[in-house]
Amino acid sequence: MSYDLVIKGGEVVSSSGSFKADVAIVHEKIAAVGLELEGRHTVDAAGKLVLPGALDVHTHFQLPFCGTVSADDFFTGSRAAAMGGVTTFIDFAIQSRPASVMQTIEARKAEADPRVCVDYSLHAGITDWNEDRVAEMPDIFAAGIPTFKMFMIYKSEGWQSTDADIYCAVREADRYGGMVGLHAENDDLINLFQAEAEQEGRRGMYVHALTRPPVTETEAISRAIQIAEAAGGALYIFHMSTGRAADILKEARARGVDVQAETCPQYLLLDDQLFKRPDGPHFGTCPPIRKPWDQQRLWERLEDGTVEVVSTDTCTFNSQQKKMWQGDYRKTPFGMPGIETMLPLTYTKGVVEGRLDLGQMVAILSENPARVFGMWPRKGTISPGSDADIVIFDPRLEVTISHRHLATNCDYSPFEGMVCKGWPTTTMVRGRIVVENRQFVGEAGYGRFIERHPVRSPRA
Amino acid sequence: MSYDLVIKGGEVVSSSGSFKADVAIVHEKIAAVGLELEGRHTVDAAGKLVLPGALDVHTHFQLPFCGTVSADDFFTGSRAAAMGGVTTFIDFAIQSRPASVMQTIEARKAEADPRVCVDYSLHAGITDWNEDRVAEMPDIFAAGIPTFKMFMIYKSEGWQSTDADIYCAVREADRYGGMVGLHAENDDLINLFQAEAEQEGRRGMYVHALTRPPVTETEAISRAIQIAEAAGGALYIFHMSTGRAADILKEARARGVDVQAETCPQYLLLDDQLFKRPDGPHFGTCPPIRKPWDQQRLWERLEDGTVEVVSTDTCTFNSQQKKMWQGDYRKTPFGMPGIETMLPLTYTKGVVEGRLDLGQMVAILSENPARVFGMWPRKGTISPGSDADIVIFDPRLEVTISHRHLATNCDYSPFEGMVCKGWPTTTMVRGRIVVENRQFVGEAGYGRFIERHPVRSPRA
Amino acid sequence: MSYDLVIKGGEVVSSSGSFKADVAIVHEKIAAVGLELEGRHTVDAAGKLVLPGALDVHTHFQLPFCGTVSADDFFTGSRAAAMGGVTTFIDFAIQSRPASVMQTIEARKAEADPRVCVDYSLHAGITDWNEDRVAEMPDIFAAGIPTFKMFMIYKSEGWQSTDADIYCAVREADRYGGMVGLHAENDDLINLFQAEAEQEGRRGMYVHALTRPPVTETEAISRAIQIAEAAGGALYIFHMSTGRAADILKEARARGVDVQAETCPQYLLLDDQLFKRPDGPHFGTCPPIRKPWDQQRLWERLEDGTVEVVSTDTCTFNSQQKKMWQGDYRKTPFGMPGIETMLPLTYTKGVVEGRLDLGQMVAILSENPARVFGMWPRKGTISPGSDADIVIFDPRLEVTISHRHLATNCDYSPFEGMVCKGWPTTTMVRGRIVVENRQFVGEAGYGRFIERHPVRSPRA
Amino acid sequence: MSYDLVIKGGEVVSSSGSFKADVAIVHEKIAAVGLELEGRHTVDAAGKLVLPGALDVHTHFQLPFCGTVSADDFFTGSRAAAMGGVTTFIDFAIQSRPASVMQTIEARKAEADPRVCVDYSLHAGITDWNEDRVAEMPDIFAAGIPTFKMFMIYKSEGWQSTDADIYCAVREADRYGGMVGLHAENDDLINLFQAEAEQEGRRGMYVHALTRPPVTETEAISRAIQIAEAAGGALYIFHMSTGRAADILKEARARGVDVQAETCPQYLLLDDQLFKRPDGPHFGTCPPIRKPWDQQRLWERLEDGTVEVVSTDTCTFNSQQKKMWQGDYRKTPFGMPGIETMLPLTYTKGVVEGRLDLGQMVAILSENPARVFGMWPRKGTISPGSDADIVIFDPRLEVTISHRHLATNCDYSPFEGMVCKGWPTTTMVRGRIVVENRQFVGEAGYGRFIERHPVRSPRA
Repeated sequence: MSYDLVIKGGEVVSSSGSFKADVAIVHEKIAAVGLELEGRHTVDAAGKLVLPGALDVHTHFQLPFCGTVSADDFFTGSRAAAMGGVTTFIDFAIQSRPASVMQTIEARKAEADPRVCVDYSLHAGITDWNEDRVAEMPDIFAAGIPTFKMFMIYKSEGWQSTDADIYCAVREADRYGGMVGLHAENDDLINLFQAEAEQEGRRGMYVHALTRPPVTETEAISRAIQIAEAAGGALYIFHMSTGRAADILKEARARGVDVQAETCPQYLLLDDQLFKRPDGPHFGTCPPIRKPWDQQRLWERLEDGTVEVVSTDTCTFNSQQKKMWQGDYRKTPFGMPGIETMLPLTYTKGVVEGRLDLGQMVAILSENPARVFGMWPRKGTISPGSDADIVIFDPRLEVTISHRHLATNCDYSPFEGMVCKGWPTTTMVRGRIVVENRQFVGEAGYGRFIERHPVRSPRA
Repeated sequence: MSYDLVIKGGEVVSSSGSFKADVAIVHEKIAAVGLELEGRHTVDAAGKLVLPGALDVHTHFQLPFCGTVSADDFFTGSRAAAMGGVTTFIDFAIQSRPASVMQTIEARKAEADPRVCVDYSLHAGITDWNEDRVAEMPDIFAAGIPTFKMFMIYKSEGWQSTDADIYCAVREADRYGGMVGLHAENDDLINLFQAEAEQEGRRGMYVHALTRPPVTETEAISRAIQIAEAAGGALYIFHMSTGRAADILKEARARGVDVQAETCPQYLLLDDQLFKRPDGPHFGTCPPIRKPWDQQRLWERLEDGTVEVVSTDTCTFNSQQKKMWQGDYRKTPFGMPGIETMLPLTYTKGVVEGRLDLGQMVAILSENPARVFGMWPRKGTISPGSDADIVIFDPRLEVTISHRHLATNCDYSPFEGMVCKGWPTTTMVRGRIVVENRQFVGEAGYGRFIERHPVRSPRA
Repeated sequence: MSYDLVIKGGEVVSSSGSFKADVAIVHEKIAAVGLELEGRHTVDAAGKLVLPGALDVHTHFQLPFCGTVSADDFFTGSRAAAMGGVTTFIDFAIQSRPASVMQTIEARKAEADPRVCVDYSLHAGITDWNEDRVAEMPDIFAAGIPTFKMFMIYKSEGWQSTDADIYCAVREADRYGGMVGLHAENDDLINLFQAEAEQEGRRGMYVHALTRPPVTETEAISRAIQIAEAAGGALYIFHMSTGRAADILKEARARGVDVQAETCPQYLLLDDQLFKRPDGPHFGTCPPIRKPWDQQRLWERLEDGTVEVVSTDTCTFNSQQKKMWQGDYRKTPFGMPGIETMLPLTYTKGVVEGRLDLGQMVAILSENPARVFGMWPRKGTISPGSDADIVIFDPRLEVTISHRHLATNCDYSPFEGMVCKGWPTTTMVRGRIVVENRQFVGEAGYGRFIERHPVRSPRA
Repeated sequence: MSYDLVIKGGEVVSSSGSFKADVAIVHEKIAAVGLELEGRHTVDAAGKLVLPGALDVHTHFQLPFCGTVSADDFFTGSRAAAMGGVTTFIDFAIQSRPASVMQTIEARKAEADPRVCVDYSLHAGITDWNEDRVAEMPDIFAAGIPTFKMFMIYKSEGWQSTDADIYCAVREADRYGGMVGLHAENDDLINLFQAEAEQEGRRGMYVHALTRPPVTETEAISRAIQIAEAAGGALYIFHMSTGRAADILKEARARGVDVQAETCPQYLLLDDQLFKRPDGPHFGTCPPIRKPWDQQRLWERLEDGTVEVVSTDTCTFNSQQKKMWQGDYRKTPFGMPGIETMLPLTYTKGVVEGRLDLGQMVAILSENPARVFGMWPRKGTISPGSDADIVIFDPRLEVTISHRHLATNCDYSPFEGMVCKGWPTTTMVRGRIVVENRQFVGEAGYGRFIERHPVRSPRA
């Protein structure tokens, strides 16, 4: 058989381990993994790792938020993805009432489709759980979206869901084999701490951390777990930030609750003392970055399989936008770039520093997210028949992170100055090379919306 | 020395164990525990147990609720207490806005003082946490009330507290060495389940259990524990009903959270199949009675010291009042009599049936509640200098529970027909015999309000 | 490229999951996994599973034991392996003093090499830990044997090792990246129970179970774990049979001890009531088969990853040999056939009955044993460059187990009558088909001794 | 009633708490605990604590060991006990074959009776478990000795018991309601480590700690627990020294094993760096003193009730005797004085420093040992009818420990220089004052052998 393209001589990695092999591609698919394969075109991967493209299941490109719009749009964002070895991302279609979820999805796809350079999907963000949502749920699944996002905070933005809403949504989603993901923080307590800070006139950036102490996350996660357990459906926790929450998750999974969680590089690598720097607002996210012992515990829970996914929660605001904070932490646009550095940072801090092995990294960045979110085995693995989403990663490249060399539309990186021992050099999406030798060669509109399948057996 | 009264020849019990001794009383106090003591009067206790009077830290006498008033007023209620070996109870002064807590306490004392036959105290029920409550807190402590009650449900009654209210109250109470107790149920979920039942036209009494599944309690307790842990103060859980909650409590205490809890005989002995009987509404309480496996687990947690207190949540509604339910479980006046049967039931089902030893029973019914609620060592122990609150308990009396022989103002008992292997025959409050040979010989107004001391070291 | 052979159209399975693909072979190796591969020869696998050959890391072929020799020699045993989808086994070279371990290995290889039909390796069985063993250890590793077997029992056979021996061996093996495996039973207690039974004149087959109660295993495993933990090396537990031991293992692994374990189909599927049957001796093994609740717990620990390997402990004694017991359980030759039924039974009772998924089965039978015992990625996976050890498994074949259709040299099967929902039809070892359409087409002497690499990083 | 003696005005302490009361004594017994009691004699305890005399359940007075005899004989040892507030001790009658246990008990009583100044009992030390031991067991119980001591080490001394011996002894003792206590160390591993040290020529005192690493204790305790669990009887662990063992104990008790343990002040307060001092041999005991983190964990397990007893393992060797070590740690007579300092050290390091409350201290030093060893309520409590074994303890006395002021026959104290915030001033045994104002006023031969009752219900 004659192959379109063969990636030759690399070390192919899966969660089981790695072996030296060529990878052959025909059109958009992986056609073979083997020895001495030949094709019309060849990419040399000798001395390099050949990884399934990473998935970032948590991005917010061109998101209107805090009176501005996140700085990475679907083009610059997905270009950054490609540059960082991410071949599929999942963004959000967050319902803005009175629009229905389906209308929001369509609108969001219309924004994304002409701009995306890699493949993508959407989570359906529900902000007003009611009979209309129940009614359109079959349509949402039919549209290839089996996962939902709800917020336990953001009451003033009109996004907050009640405990009862979450219970109902988990139960309803379970009928179709879906899963509800949550932004889990306790609104009531955060408001209290913010009001107290206000009374005392404290508004500095570090107050962001002080007014969202661990309990504001751990309580909400603990509550969500119990609600989902009672509702009998699957739960996903977005951007888990504290070590204690990871312990709660471990206990819940051990007793059989169907709950999964992600954490993000910022929670694994940064700590809240950064808020005290002049550029503190650059590090502002919700939930906030935490303490070194939280990092430590999160790594442990990644290593033991409790936390199955690393994502980025990319929501880029550049330094100009961050200035909106004007000395008041509450006005900070919360979010940061990250999709581009997820893979090299996880490799360096995880694999090179001995916290994970290569197979675990591929599980966490590719296999698990694909499986958890209904894209397996189309995405997340280098197997015949899968989409040819492949990253060639050079473990000998040493790269010091700087916004100057990054493709994201941002004039800083929260990981500025960190030294990565390895970097992706080539990225391929459905058989097409979109990054070559660290140069972007893709094009807006090449990426496709991926229809996902249910993540559990429908109850029916 | 010449004693006023000596109880002779009984087996005196403390949490450490028991020994044969006489107990001598001078005026209101225990003067001595010893051998061959002599006094001007003598009570023969040969062959009997001599116990410190039990404390019931959870009663609702003459409580206006559901458009009626609980049927046991302070007289009949405290008479029933005396008959059942309870020498001190703690009722509630639940603030009815716009009255202050202090005003409510005064009003409640005015109702109680002329009627009580045994000693009593009050928990301060707070229903609108705000600056006024902060301001009057020193006065409440000065009035001898170091414990508070807040409700996580009863929004429509205007009683509900938010997470932030609870956080603030726990923190504020801790300044003075106080403790916040909670009615812990998840309002939002209960409303959901009730609304769903309503949609389906289900209103029978068993629906009460179905609309308050375990998660409605366990989630609220779990949340409260985390809030109190973060606030850094002491927490008390009223009427814990589920086995899972008891496990959550055990885990929290093991990791160092300052939380204590009570359960009640109805949760230890009854199960929710009773709701299906014609007299189902008689068994209606909040939270509802549960499953046999919950009973089992609660006994285990009493035995291992996780649950430190048994109380009754006595809130008597007679069968006439219970008729208000008219086929709709939501209209049932929730509550039942119980103070009179707590001690003999705990003895029979706990000690005789081998779940507890005698010392554990005295700990659970007398020593622990006195200590937990700031009355130790004045109450709860047969020690020199303590109030002479003493029960002579005959372990050879076999009594089948029937409302006909009970002193409570109620025409049924939820424990009707249960056979008790032992019953209190004599009850003494501050040196005065108020029950003699199972006859009430006390009088309204003899009981006194007991000023309690802080339950923790004040922070200041 | 032209392939020697292509397995076409099957569902290729790895621990990550499965996908439809062809598998191409060149000479002894897998050359490619891909779509529409073509070769000079073709094997049709449409509708079938294509599995990496199973490994059985625990066999005793032609073992002199109890005055006889196990009935499956290296030929019939490895033929049965092939028929059952096992492409590599690990037998034992158990040192018989005064022979050295190296001499024993050489002798054992000489027995095996001309007879084996599939690939094999040996564990080095050490029965007299001393300076000579320390001295020859480098040679043993150089010979491709990084794993050792020691016995905590069999004192009279001269095989028993002391706690100190085990400590030293674990520590010494760790220097070279090796691992000590144990037969873990408490000799002293077994002797006691046997002596007591003897005093009472009880010798029936069920007494075998009674004289080896769970504590005789769990104590020994617990002790071994603590010794290995202190010695700082890796430990392997052979033929773990009790649920309690699996719990001990789970706890030990959670606190970081480097310990792994296997269980066997007889412990997962049989219970000790079988000893009461007339053919009870057929089921006699050491340790004995256990209770249904042990089975249940072992399955749970397989499912959660605590137990990583299933092996068979095949040590065939036919019914004639079993007659040696003559009414005295102690004279029973302990052992049974099993290598041939391991894969179909694990598939049926594990995958079909929902206890494991397909990927977990492949992990337990192929990937894990290859990795744990130093043969990864040469064995245990269908990846380019790996040995072409492949099983085509037909999930639609329903086979009722009977010794009549089995290749093992035994006139009964302990699993007689069990219905398997699926059976291997074709087995390939290093590219050569040795079983075709359930017919053995291999030949004695084709199998090779596989030199294994260290299982941990040498300490150097 | 006229009392012989009244202790007036002190704070009487039990495990439940404390209260101000007088304690009246008639002849040997406590006659009353009360207010304003009057007697022919009076002891003023104003401002002092009135404690039940402590029990030390682990002493070795005038023990032949290591070719010498422990320096405190029954007179000087029991005098030290009295001075330190210990009113009852339990020593050992360790069978020296071929003598029977009963013969040993009689011989040991003959040594003790004329010399003891406080009450005492004996554990029956069994060194050759066999049918003779089974036969004499009823006699041992009849002699008032329900507890046994066996050794897992000391093979060369002829004291070692096998696993089977322990199993049988636990089972047999259980028939009569008895309990087996163990010196739990792994002989085989200790011998290994000692032999290795010898090979390397290391014999310094610190080598004692190095050759008995934690595993030598934790493995043995873990093994003993499993054996006792299987045998179905009660187990006691003497002189537990490691934090890990305390965790093992906690886990075992939580799953229902009937096991209890003691630790000693040397394990709570000293660490193994002391071995490096010139007087290192003074600190030599078996097991050895450990690390600061072991101390920490042992205190935690005392606080949470896992470890119920503190004893001393007093086995005094003076500095002259310690010289026997002559530079070889193995020749050190292992043991140290301690009975005299147990109470003030536990008070100071436990109560004053906030690790225990007063009630817990009384539980650990008096109530629990009396209960655990079959002397409750005769010993261990200030209750009417109990023996008048009472200590008046002055919490305002500050005493710096020095052998110069101690009554023990030893020229050093392992706790030399520690400052105690409180010290016993008066000790009373069965109504007779034996220490008055820190002066010994007792007499040899006053103490009595206490016949103990079974510690569990006999199985019969």
